[in-house]
Amino acid sequence: MQRILATYRITASESESRARAEALALEQSVEMPLEAVTDQRVRAEVVASVESVRADGTAFEVILGIAPETTLPEASQLLNMLFGNCSLQPDVELVDVELPASYAARFHGPRHGIAGIRTAAGAEGRALTCTALKPQGSSVEQLAALARTFALAGIDVVKDDHGLADQPGAPFAKRVPAVQRAIDEANRATGGSTRYAPTFSGGMDALDAQARIARECGVAMALAAPMLIGVPAFVALCERFNGPVMAHPAFAGSGRIAPPLLLGRLFRLFGADATIFPNHGGRFAYDRTTCEAIAEVAREPWHALKPTLPVPAGGMTLERVPEMIADYGSDVMLLIGGGLLTARERLLERSRAFAVAVRQ
Amino acid sequence: MQRILATYRITASESESRARAEALALEQSVEMPLEAVTDQRVRAEVVASVESVRADGTAFEVILGIAPETTLPEASQLLNMLFGNCSLQPDVELVDVELPASYAARFHGPRHGIAGIRTAAGAEGRALTCTALKPQGSSVEQLAALARTFALAGIDVVKDDHGLADQPGAPFAKRVPAVQRAIDEANRATGGSTRYAPTFSGGMDALDAQARIARECGVAMALAAPMLIGVPAFVALCERFNGPVMAHPAFAGSGRIAPPLLLGRLFRLFGADATIFPNHGGRFAYDRTTCEAIAEVAREPWHALKPTLPVPAGGMTLERVPEMIADYGSDVMLLIGGGLLTARERLLERSRAFAVAVRQ
Repeated sequence: MQRILATYRITASESESRARAEALALEQSVEMPLEAVTDQRVRAEVVASVESVRADGTAFEVILGIAPETTLPEASQLLNMLFGNCSLQPDVELVDVELPASYAARFHGPRHGIAGIRTAAGAEGRALTCTALKPQGSSVEQLAALARTFALAGIDVVKDDHGLADQPGAPFAKRVPAVQRAIDEANRATGGSTRYAPTFSGGMDALDAQARIARECGVAMALAAPMLIGVPAFVALCERFNGPVMAHPAFAGSGRIAPPLLLGRLFRLFGADATIFPNHGGRFAYDRTTCEAIAEVAREPWHALKPTLPVPAGGMTLERVPEMIADYGSDVMLLIGGGLLTARERLLERSRAFAVAVRQ
Repeated sequence: MQRILATYRITASESESRARAEALALEQSVEMPLEAVTDQRVRAEVVASVESVRADGTAFEVILGIAPETTLPEASQLLNMLFGNCSLQPDVELVDVELPASYAARFHGPRHGIAGIRTAAGAEGRALTCTALKPQGSSVEQLAALARTFALAGIDVVKDDHGLADQPGAPFAKRVPAVQRAIDEANRATGGSTRYAPTFSGGMDALDAQARIARECGVAMALAAPMLIGVPAFVALCERFNGPVMAHPAFAGSGRIAPPLLLGRLFRLFGADATIFPNHGGRFAYDRTTCEAIAEVAREPWHALKPTLPVPAGGMTLERVPEMIADYGSDVMLLIGGGLLTARERLLERSRAFAVAVRQ
């Protein structure tokens, strides 16, 4: 089978680069000195290969060929072989990964993708809108009232704040049916089709219980943070939940895996139908190039995997809607959370203005 | 309830520090502008508090008081509130965390701890030895033969390489019984009590299946990488597996959570009976101070949690045994992997020399 091609950037001088690249190839495969590897098949087929080394200023870029047999088609083992041990080496960044088609085909990727989210939210041929229920600490009634307002305003997707888990004040089992009911009522009143994406969190037993509750009350979408619940649990959630799943970037900012690779390509591989990322010019530090690259790898043709909907967020405002649509086009969902809530008693009007601005 | 005290280091000028600290407090709790938080209880009890701000060269240290009600007693939600969104802000490091006693008591921590590992391995009053089965790509027979040699040599714990998962060449269901059988036979021959710690990997269904297989063939210990399988799955594994669980640091090197906090304190909180870390002077970059701090927080008295056994590793050699024991004392397990395997046909002798050197 063809190799997985993983591109790393290593801070080291050119004279050291070949030795450093070869050490990395061992670290990310057999994790032992080559002279101690006696089996010829292991040397030829299992040890990662150094495919290229290219100087790049004070660093160099190395492409390793990683044997798919070491990674299985399993998300956490893929991360292990791509960036497990070398995550502990501060001079190494993981920049990009290319998968053989036969290997990529062993992951499902998004079940629904952009088209599935459009169908769920009844939003064809235009950018979508998203907002968040917050703050945590609010009662179930407060969150449901907020959701009703957003749905009356015509927002496409209302998600839970990523901090909403199973807190005693608004536990999942009470919050989610109440919010879904409020949204259903508003949809009936407006003829709209706002969808709710509650936050799924915790261990696999909790996730399964949450999926049952969500299914029973007609929830159509879900939100989870792959790096918090763990990528195997995220993959399982995408398989088991009967609707589009949005990935949240919480805890994903190690800074040494390129954001387009992690939030775009890998989350897509693992099944994310939408990927939220901190847009430039907000509360986070990603620059415009990084954000555009995230959107690009999420949506570009890639093996047989459906495209993932990019969701720029993180301190966005109504004023930036035209610019964001100009930047990202119509295959995007704009997420404004706090920027709506600061309207307070004028929340319905500002939310409606957001929905209208994006629809136009 | 008392607050969780989380210490961050933020790269910013002193003049910005107060505003930056307050922004961080919002980011890590309600994630919205304070003026939009209308509920007085939320303002008083849920919004994180800025407990102190202290200038420190070109950075400053801020201590936030995080409300335990936001984090639940659940591992991934604790990480979410400690470092979820701000992991995406490259100027923020998470340095340390102190938990209220009542909150710490809601986590079990290590079930077995150092004393439990000593009992399992029959190793009282001295440092322990550990080595690894590798390389991946080896057949079940090759790995079992290696395990037999290590057990005959008197190594206390033989673990799988962290890259061994469920690869078709040596799948868990065949590898683990065969290796355990080889070790059992060697133990009978020597009267020793070498223990085997296979690598548990993948999603929760896979972990449960692996625990069943391990139980059936008498495996006494386990190894898993919390940041790869996800911390909720690691917690569940520690609860369900009937023996000490070792934490592997793969994928844990984001560099912006202080290693003593993540590998020492938090892995201990989540249930690790032993924690492997890259020792200074090997293939990784942690310095001596960092390594000693990991060992210290793993073992120091901390609420009612049992101590976690520190396992320095990552390119260690036989020659460094006296120095490591002088550094870490006897409550330590020394892990040498590749440094034994390079002996090739003299593997038994070198492994025996390792076991003897540590016992003395």
